[in-house]
Amino acid sequence: MSVSTLNNPLTAEEMERYSLTPYTEALKLTPHLANESDKKSRKMKASLAEAIKDLGLKDGMTISFHHAFRGGDKTINMVMDVIAELGLKNLTLASSSLTSVHAPLVKHIKNGVVSKIYTSGIRGELADEISRGLLEEPVHIHSHGGRVHLVQSGEIHIDMAFIGVPCCDEFGNANGFKGKSICGSLGYAKVDSEYADKVVMLTESLVEYPAYPASIHQDNVDAVVQVEEVGDPSKIGGDATRMTKNPRELLIAKYCADVIENSGYFNNGFSMQTGSGGASLAVTRFLKEKMIRQDIRASFALGGITATMVDLHEEGLIENLLDVQCFDSVAAESLSRNPHHIEISANEYANPSSKGAVVDRLDVVILSALEIDTQFNVNVITGSDGVIRGASGGHSDTAAAANLAVIVCPLVRGRIPTVVEKVTNVVTPGSTIDVLVTDQGIAVNPNRPEVKERLIAAGLPVMEVAELQQRAELLTGKPEPLEFEERTVAFVHYRDGSIIDVIKQVKE
Amino acid sequence: MSVSTLNNPLTAEEMERYSLTPYTEALKLTPHLANESDKKSRKMKASLAEAIKDLGLKDGMTISFHHAFRGGDKTINMVMDVIAELGLKNLTLASSSLTSVHAPLVKHIKNGVVSKIYTSGIRGELADEISRGLLEEPVHIHSHGGRVHLVQSGEIHIDMAFIGVPCCDEFGNANGFKGKSICGSLGYAKVDSEYADKVVMLTESLVEYPAYPASIHQDNVDAVVQVEEVGDPSKIGGDATRMTKNPRELLIAKYCADVIENSGYFNNGFSMQTGSGGASLAVTRFLKEKMIRQDIRASFALGGITATMVDLHEEGLIENLLDVQCFDSVAAESLSRNPHHIEISANEYANPSSKGAVVDRLDVVILSALEIDTQFNVNVITGSDGVIRGASGGHSDTAAAANLAVIVCPLVRGRIPTVVEKVTNVVTPGSTIDVLVTDQGIAVNPNRPEVKERLIAAGLPVMEVAELQQRAELLTGKPEPLEFEERTVAFVHYRDGSIIDVIKQVKE
Repeated sequence: MSVSTLNNPLTAEEMERYSLTPYTEALKLTPHLANESDKKSRKMKASLAEAIKDLGLKDGMTISFHHAFRGGDKTINMVMDVIAELGLKNLTLASSSLTSVHAPLVKHIKNGVVSKIYTSGIRGELADEISRGLLEEPVHIHSHGGRVHLVQSGEIHIDMAFIGVPCCDEFGNANGFKGKSICGSLGYAKVDSEYADKVVMLTESLVEYPAYPASIHQDNVDAVVQVEEVGDPSKIGGDATRMTKNPRELLIAKYCADVIENSGYFNNGFSMQTGSGGASLAVTRFLKEKMIRQDIRASFALGGITATMVDLHEEGLIENLLDVQCFDSVAAESLSRNPHHIEISANEYANPSSKGAVVDRLDVVILSALEIDTQFNVNVITGSDGVIRGASGGHSDTAAAANLAVIVCPLVRGRIPTVVEKVTNVVTPGSTIDVLVTDQGIAVNPNRPEVKERLIAAGLPVMEVAELQQRAELLTGKPEPLEFEERTVAFVHYRDGSIIDVIKQVKE
Repeated sequence: MSVSTLNNPLTAEEMERYSLTPYTEALKLTPHLANESDKKSRKMKASLAEAIKDLGLKDGMTISFHHAFRGGDKTINMVMDVIAELGLKNLTLASSSLTSVHAPLVKHIKNGVVSKIYTSGIRGELADEISRGLLEEPVHIHSHGGRVHLVQSGEIHIDMAFIGVPCCDEFGNANGFKGKSICGSLGYAKVDSEYADKVVMLTESLVEYPAYPASIHQDNVDAVVQVEEVGDPSKIGGDATRMTKNPRELLIAKYCADVIENSGYFNNGFSMQTGSGGASLAVTRFLKEKMIRQDIRASFALGGITATMVDLHEEGLIENLLDVQCFDSVAAESLSRNPHHIEISANEYANPSSKGAVVDRLDVVILSALEIDTQFNVNVITGSDGVIRGASGGHSDTAAAANLAVIVCPLVRGRIPTVVEKVTNVVTPGSTIDVLVTDQGIAVNPNRPEVKERLIAAGLPVMEVAELQQRAELLTGKPEPLEFEERTVAFVHYRDGSIIDVIKQVKE
């Protein structure tokens, strides 16, 4: 239809003064509306290759993935194989995290398909190779909250996000808790769906429109592809989230529960988060008894939600579960069943520049450590051999924001000290850590004298962190200093985007 | 903490090459985390004036509101009075719509507080005054989907959004369906909360954290203010959504239901939307009988959800209600009760540049008209006297996208013809209208010959639109042409942002 449908034409002066454009035809901006079947099914693609080509992925672009399936992820390797076949090169891979199942990435890096990586963590063969200098540009390690900050600030500009889900409709509405391979919360993928230029959903089952509840919404999705499998839910938990039977870990957990009980923060309506380490998880068990005995209910548990947290929630001890990521399949199932098991995005979880992150309201967080030093600086990214074998995760986010950040770890692991003079690498600055709990004693950061007094008053074995370090050294002997090459293999971003440490190439 | 927490310093070359900043201190980006009570309650403001001042509203900025309370809204007048008292001038008011309760805006325009308006509709004294030239810059009328397009394209840049809600927690999580004055869906406010630089929540009740389900999320909220009242739910429906007893409207509704039944789109799993006019609402009642008789279930009803739609949903005749706005308090209550009564944002509803608007999947929409012409162009904004008295709403959005757009209206209203040679103003272009249903007969757009054939085959009183226009003229006589001043009082934006018509100042 022509300009003549205007009853009263715009004057040239009006067009100029108010920057107006006259109407020309109804479907100018929406040509897809001309075809009745197209407009419903225009996002469906016959294959991943078709989706990637149609949406225009180009050399040098940035692609993203979520890691909700953790060790069970099947999406990244599948997509990367297709991308490699299509001959694309020089991509930046911005997965919210990577695990040992992503060893095939070594091949794609060697072939020039991937030339840059942003991730929270790396493990296994990929981590080994990167520690030995596989990538020309150092890997960028970020926290879960810090990743959102990097995305919002534009340092990570996602050109195309690939989001693997168990169920999705043909318009892109999807969640992670209905279907065959459920991963639960899509907290990281939510952010990618909102910020990526193009979004491709990979779904195991195509469900009737509208798929609801929707964690990913149709107005953020460009293409939908049906695939065989996106992940293996049985591997979401893996070793990192097992419930420990180790007596030393149980002792640490018991001490930790005592610390929380006497910290001043164990009150009705308190909130908590636990990491995914053995001792960290076991704390919940001991806390449960204390909560029942003292008639204390938690307002919310945050984080990575575990089967143990679901148990406490269903028993009425924790009112809400705020869930950016399910740490096991029990939690993933709970998300579809419990109305107060609430899915939150990574921006709501922990982004330091978010208008409101849940971590800001957190009373107590229990975190693990590969190493912690006498300044309370924590390393969760490299082993004592300097090789990358961990993840930044929500460690520094929760430590900075919570009222009480507690590190739980054994004083030594075999012949290797955990409490050291100087950590191999810093992920979380010591200024944000309040208490260190080991099997051999408890240390309180000097910047929390009131907490220290409370723990001493409760009869807990409080000592100086330097004493713990010396005791560790007595047990293991003074470790030989590690030797590194000059070359940098990874930058460790703090949650605000700055670089808190640099990981050097290990010397063979 | 100083740069010395870095184990391995960044080299100057690395900083330069990768644009990196070294870490300095943990709370640099998040100074609010230093205080335990601040970090939880930092968004709470003692008064609206304090919120406005703290968040830095300045002369010339753009403020926004939602219209979910329609004729019962109490937020806009309350906020504008405070803004006027603070002495702010020259603001752009971008409310998703305005009604006759907003007459006090006349005063704020005269005093220079408001100098520019974007809205879907205007009624009452404000509309009268604007039609008579109250505002220097013409008002910008937009559709509900088109508003989101204007916001996303930057034509409307919201500096501060004010969102009135019945319940909210101190971090800003809120919904519209729990508390005293419930309005139901916050579909328009969702968009504002995501795009505004600053977001102020005005809440009747302050509920425990986390308020859930959350329609507005904490990571989009800057300030929370508790107020006495935000709206009167009993006035959401008003006259616009009453169920008609008028025999002529019932006849139109019956014809319309027959049209839908025989259009080719009345199949199991179809979808529909009705406007808020009397005949339009009554159609649902007739369709219900046909659905039961033919064992047809609708996949979804969209829109403005009404009590009638809730009734059909609860009887199992409509599987999902996709709700951008509740048209009455029954619908608002249903939203908290029915899990498949689903709140959607205006971007999901109808934005033409959204990656997926529900209107694109709509089979049938039933819309009203103040006037329709022989080109099927529809006027829903001005009366036959040229005075503004309506709203663009979702009219042009749904007409463009639905498979079958049906206009229902009486042939004449008193001595005023509805079907005319040329409408006073065009809101919805005739190319997007498929069928016109009046009490005197039915006309089908020539661009839909297959629909015309089906209706004739069904024995419906199909005639040419020109015949209907002539019959109207026989009844009312040829209306005197209206006279207007040269001056423009409003621009009517089409959903793609272009100007489809210009409203001129009425001649007194």
